[in-house]
Amino acid sequence: MTAPTTADLLALDRAAQDLLFRVARTANTFTDEPVTDAQVAAIHDLIRYGPTAYNGQPLRVLLLRSAAARARLLPYVSSSNRAKTASAPLVAVLAADVDFHERLPELYPHRPQARDWLSDRPARAEQARFSATLQIGYLLVGVRAAGLAAGPMAGFDATGVTREFFPDGRHEALLLLNLGHPGPDAWAEQRLPRLSTEEVVWTL
Amino acid sequence: MTAPTTADLLALDRAAQDLLFRVARTANTFTDEPVTDAQVAAIHDLIRYGPTAYNGQPLRVLLLRSAAARARLLPYVSSSNRAKTASAPLVAVLAADVDFHERLPELYPHRPQARDWLSDRPARAEQARFSATLQIGYLLVGVRAAGLAAGPMAGFDATGVTREFFPDGRHEALLLLNLGHPGPDAWAEQRLPRLSTEEVVWTL
Repeated sequence: MTAPTTADLLALDRAAQDLLFRVARTANTFTDEPVTDAQVAAIHDLIRYGPTAYNGQPLRVLLLRSAAARARLLPYVSSSNRAKTASAPLVAVLAADVDFHERLPELYPHRPQARDWLSDRPARAEQARFSATLQIGYLLVGVRAAGLAAGPMAGFDATGVTREFFPDGRHEALLLLNLGHPGPDAWAEQRLPRLSTEEVVWTL
Repeated sequence: MTAPTTADLLALDRAAQDLLFRVARTANTFTDEPVTDAQVAAIHDLIRYGPTAYNGQPLRVLLLRSAAARARLLPYVSSSNRAKTASAPLVAVLAADVDFHERLPELYPHRPQARDWLSDRPARAEQARFSATLQIGYLLVGVRAAGLAAGPMAGFDATGVTREFFPDGRHEALLLLNLGHPGPDAWAEQRLPRLSTEEVVWTL
């Protein structure tokens, strides 16, 4: 763990630091305890305040609650992720709305022309992916803020999931997320090593 | 603000919710009070525990502390962002290390072959951008956890900044970030509207 002096430099209290970052782990197994719609709404109501470019908020969250929806997902999940995806109490597909610019006159009202700056679809899709990925960072923090474990999974066929769940052509799947309470052996290994500040932060 | 019942569904206490999300705002002006290296190290020491694909941790943070370094940045900043970038006590260039895979045998030791799965540079660059952007989400939360205001700026010439500050060809600039204590009129406007849970979260 970290020396108290470093943690004490933060305004956020130590219990919250532990809940969100220091003790929280990516869970690989979950109990049967459900994750309710009210919990998901509370998480979203917290993290929706995080900043995005043009306040565009392109992240969309598709909850797969029914057995039929879960079954549609599994063929696109890598073999190493399939068992935990099948058993998690709740699985979400996290996606970017590439046509988020349509809402900008309302979301960014002091510069309504921003919608027109984003008329080029490939450039807009890149913006959508970037801001939605920032929001996924906030969301992972928010899941932990709810006392739940998050299980993000990049090992899946994103093109296939996009086609399967977003046939409208305006959304792109970015990440799968298992949510729940950690089960037995949720993290069997030692915590993986993290880079030091000296390796990550440079000064000019 | 939010009904108490929604906030009360979270394990994170209300003061921390406010510090990180509900009351925190993107600052456009800053006081002269410096941001120290110790504060930056404390922020990084917190957020480095956030999850990334393959535990690859591709985010790199270049702090521009000298006047000379700041002067090199300004030509690449959009005119609407130039004044605040010139006056912020600390400006950081947030970048992705496209060659993050070189460290995987150490960072992801149970699957050392992961390095070889990422031998294709364009696919790896996309992975680097994705995980580094997740980490930027954690970082913005971490800046607020330190009691500081964050000023993320997407309005800059990313190709130019990459060339100017990362001539090694292995890093890509993703975002600029002003850090400091909020100054006068740091946020002149009303808080911009946020999408509701009904607009963002769907269920199948």
